[in-house]
Amino acid sequence: MNLLSPLRRAVSVGGSRSAIVGQGSLTYDELWSRCLRLTGALAGLGLQRGDRVAVAAANSGAYLELYQTVPGAGYVLVPLNVRHTQAELAYALSDSATSVIFTDLDPEPFAGVVKQVISLPAQYENLLAGAAEQEPPDDVTEGDVAGLFYTGGTTGAAKGVMLTHRNLLANAFHFMACWPFNPETCWLVAAPMFHAAGTIGALSIVWNAGSHVFLERFDPGVALDLIEAHRVTATLVVPTMLAALADEQRRRPRDVSSLTHLSYGGAPTATETLRRARAAFPEATLLHIYGATETSPIVTLLPAQEQVLDSPRARSCGQPAVGVEVQVVDADGKPVPAGTVGEVCARGPNIMAGYWNKPEETARAMRDGWYRTGDLAYMDEEAYVFHVDRSKDMIVTGGENVYSSEVENALFQHPAVAEAAVFGVPHPRWGEAVHAALVVRSAVEEEELREHCRALIADYKVPKTFEFRSELPKSGAGKILKRELRRPHWADHDGFVG
Amino acid sequence: MNLLSPLRRAVSVGGSRSAIVGQGSLTYDELWSRCLRLTGALAGLGLQRGDRVAVAAANSGAYLELYQTVPGAGYVLVPLNVRHTQAELAYALSDSATSVIFTDLDPEPFAGVVKQVISLPAQYENLLAGAAEQEPPDDVTEGDVAGLFYTGGTTGAAKGVMLTHRNLLANAFHFMACWPFNPETCWLVAAPMFHAAGTIGALSIVWNAGSHVFLERFDPGVALDLIEAHRVTATLVVPTMLAALADEQRRRPRDVSSLTHLSYGGAPTATETLRRARAAFPEATLLHIYGATETSPIVTLLPAQEQVLDSPRARSCGQPAVGVEVQVVDADGKPVPAGTVGEVCARGPNIMAGYWNKPEETARAMRDGWYRTGDLAYMDEEAYVFHVDRSKDMIVTGGENVYSSEVENALFQHPAVAEAAVFGVPHPRWGEAVHAALVVRSAVEEEELREHCRALIADYKVPKTFEFRSELPKSGAGKILKRELRRPHWADHDGFVG
Repeated sequence: MNLLSPLRRAVSVGGSRSAIVGQGSLTYDELWSRCLRLTGALAGLGLQRGDRVAVAAANSGAYLELYQTVPGAGYVLVPLNVRHTQAELAYALSDSATSVIFTDLDPEPFAGVVKQVISLPAQYENLLAGAAEQEPPDDVTEGDVAGLFYTGGTTGAAKGVMLTHRNLLANAFHFMACWPFNPETCWLVAAPMFHAAGTIGALSIVWNAGSHVFLERFDPGVALDLIEAHRVTATLVVPTMLAALADEQRRRPRDVSSLTHLSYGGAPTATETLRRARAAFPEATLLHIYGATETSPIVTLLPAQEQVLDSPRARSCGQPAVGVEVQVVDADGKPVPAGTVGEVCARGPNIMAGYWNKPEETARAMRDGWYRTGDLAYMDEEAYVFHVDRSKDMIVTGGENVYSSEVENALFQHPAVAEAAVFGVPHPRWGEAVHAALVVRSAVEEEELREHCRALIADYKVPKTFEFRSELPKSGAGKILKRELRRPHWADHDGFVG
Repeated sequence: MNLLSPLRRAVSVGGSRSAIVGQGSLTYDELWSRCLRLTGALAGLGLQRGDRVAVAAANSGAYLELYQTVPGAGYVLVPLNVRHTQAELAYALSDSATSVIFTDLDPEPFAGVVKQVISLPAQYENLLAGAAEQEPPDDVTEGDVAGLFYTGGTTGAAKGVMLTHRNLLANAFHFMACWPFNPETCWLVAAPMFHAAGTIGALSIVWNAGSHVFLERFDPGVALDLIEAHRVTATLVVPTMLAALADEQRRRPRDVSSLTHLSYGGAPTATETLRRARAAFPEATLLHIYGATETSPIVTLLPAQEQVLDSPRARSCGQPAVGVEVQVVDADGKPVPAGTVGEVCARGPNIMAGYWNKPEETARAMRDGWYRTGDLAYMDEEAYVFHVDRSKDMIVTGGENVYSSEVENALFQHPAVAEAAVFGVPHPRWGEAVHAALVVRSAVEEEELREHCRALIADYKVPKTFEFRSELPKSGAGKILKRELRRPHWADHDGFVG
């Protein structure tokens, strides 16, 4: 089995069914023909088995083709975050030794970094038009690496998460065990496909010969129009999108009665957002998904939480998904009793093969087959997981992960910055916003600091707000006490919700 | 992951929930404690890793404990058909070199065959009561053999189908991808647990912390009473049970409104039986499952076939399950076009590791990773599989497989029998009945032949009907033309339904 197995089934049981509806509509027979031609085209580019092929693009049918065919043909997919700076993109391309990139960004800056740049959609379409159908190799097996999924690192260097075919197929089964996928499923691809959130449903949908609708970039009005026009049945969004969709639906209601399954994840979600979502999408069963890139991504699920919205469990991120073992452990890796805070660890066929070329980081992230999420939480007596903090000092803003240290490193490169502590503060739209507490050597404008950061790190990582202090609170050992800095900002808020 | 992983999750998410309702009721916490004590007890019997442990018993909670714990503790389960003769049981025990058997049959005949015989329920309960809880080893992995599942052979010798933990867990996911399992699932274990049909739902139910109701031996009135009393939501039956349930429900209706999911398989099903089942269980979604012991067992599924009951596809056994690749191939193993008859082959993580100690039979059954079912069928243009015959000359009577050659071998051992051809003929209750066409050397009573057979083979294999002929039709090469013998019996019937 490999990432093309679901598509083979879809073609066999429903070749004339719609794989993609709306813009770029295709039947499964047509999609299959394009994937066979893409297989031929990739071979024609001179790629060898296991070579890395990057994609930096907005959501589209072409992305879905590359997502399945690059790994299915024996290569390794490298999805890149289009919001990253050229420096960040170049780092991932160089780290992964990628030889070919498919992109709808300006191709120019990539020219010196990879051997071949193929622009979407024009060059891609030409490539397919000129290629003959080629059957993918039959020896791409589930243990092979399907992709390197880059994720931020605490040290500033991003890590390529190696996910195998088995990892991603197992995750599809974990999702199908929880939610009904069938030929009538019509999924709105709303989250960016370079994130696990964007492709979380892809294999389950294809396996069932369901259909996709692509949202190129998120816009709540366009999303609702697509749901109404194509009778979308299911989707996954990040909490900021959920809030925006609920607001837009309240502002100008569409017929969203087809939407029976609405999942969200990737960041803490405010209880108020859930209340609004429930009101805006009354036909939809809500599902909260907690996961990580390293876990392909599903770890825990909180289904039907409308039933417990007013109970404490609404603030949890649910129970271990069927197929995923979850433990909360102490510093020695021993499971702690219910109610005790520890680190969330996960085990199962969905756990990554490791970090690309980073054996030490891999060793640190894994213990006896368990992946250490770095998230601090406790479980109640029925294994509902309640997050209390993130041990990795990560901020989740608008569904994107930001590591404090990376932002602090950028700030320290400005001559005026003496001390810096970066953390998340509550934000009505983004869930959390990046905030910096600074001690400066000389007066400096906030905007100058932002501009300085923008040259080094992606826009969404740049601090939205600053506080200037004469000193930062420190422990006896001189460690900055971020918790003390954070506390006043979070005083009026619920704890971290999932 | 291994066969105890689902139970670990159930205990973690719903320890106080019911694992078994009705007779022998247990919560998951209680079930777990019993499984831990069983682990201790098995170690106390002196068993070594990989040793075979047989079960020959009616359905019960104890069977469910053994089904999960024997493999989970690192041993190999050998479920035996209680309808088999002592000679057949002794063969399987000897072939598998089983050292311990748990049985509710007369223990006496097993004494000389295995080292230890533990009677159910008394000795079993004593064993558990005297054992300390012991944590199962943590290195039983998905590639290990979980059980040897004996299945009839064309040569008369039964074969032990080696299913790994992965095989059985994969099948559970294939089932969950098709049907909703959740904590509210209450499953009636109606088919015998020594068959794949009896345990087909077990892991999916446990994984979701759903509950089981056990039907010790099939009786349609008792089954309906249990459905009504415990608000059973789902079950799987063989077609003869389906017919009996529908008749009983028509005769004396119970409240079966809780039964929303009713699956059946293991044998051809008459269209009339489906019509009656639909009328008797109007709330239930019907699901036809086609499979084999070697495929753990699901291969194809025909869901919601009430929608196509009057269409030709109602006579198919459905489409490949999500996760299982299915091909119909010619004699060289090449896929044939839609509409062309060939042999059904299946590939996926649910395919057996092979036949125990039978490398040649294994080699014959497998080709390039594909399991050859021996069933002849064609697929239509959307991969609905229509069976037309069985290349292995197998009769399915009341859910049991009978190989013609085994019955013929028994008949040949009677001095009066000169020629014998055994095949299935339609039967209103059993689907097919075993029928023998004979050329005899001297006059012999039917009942004498039946008695002769009963000493050699299980009751259900003994011919129900006979025809005595002066000669049997033969090909030019001298091969008996069974198809010609079969034809007049099947003239008024639909083709083989799944």
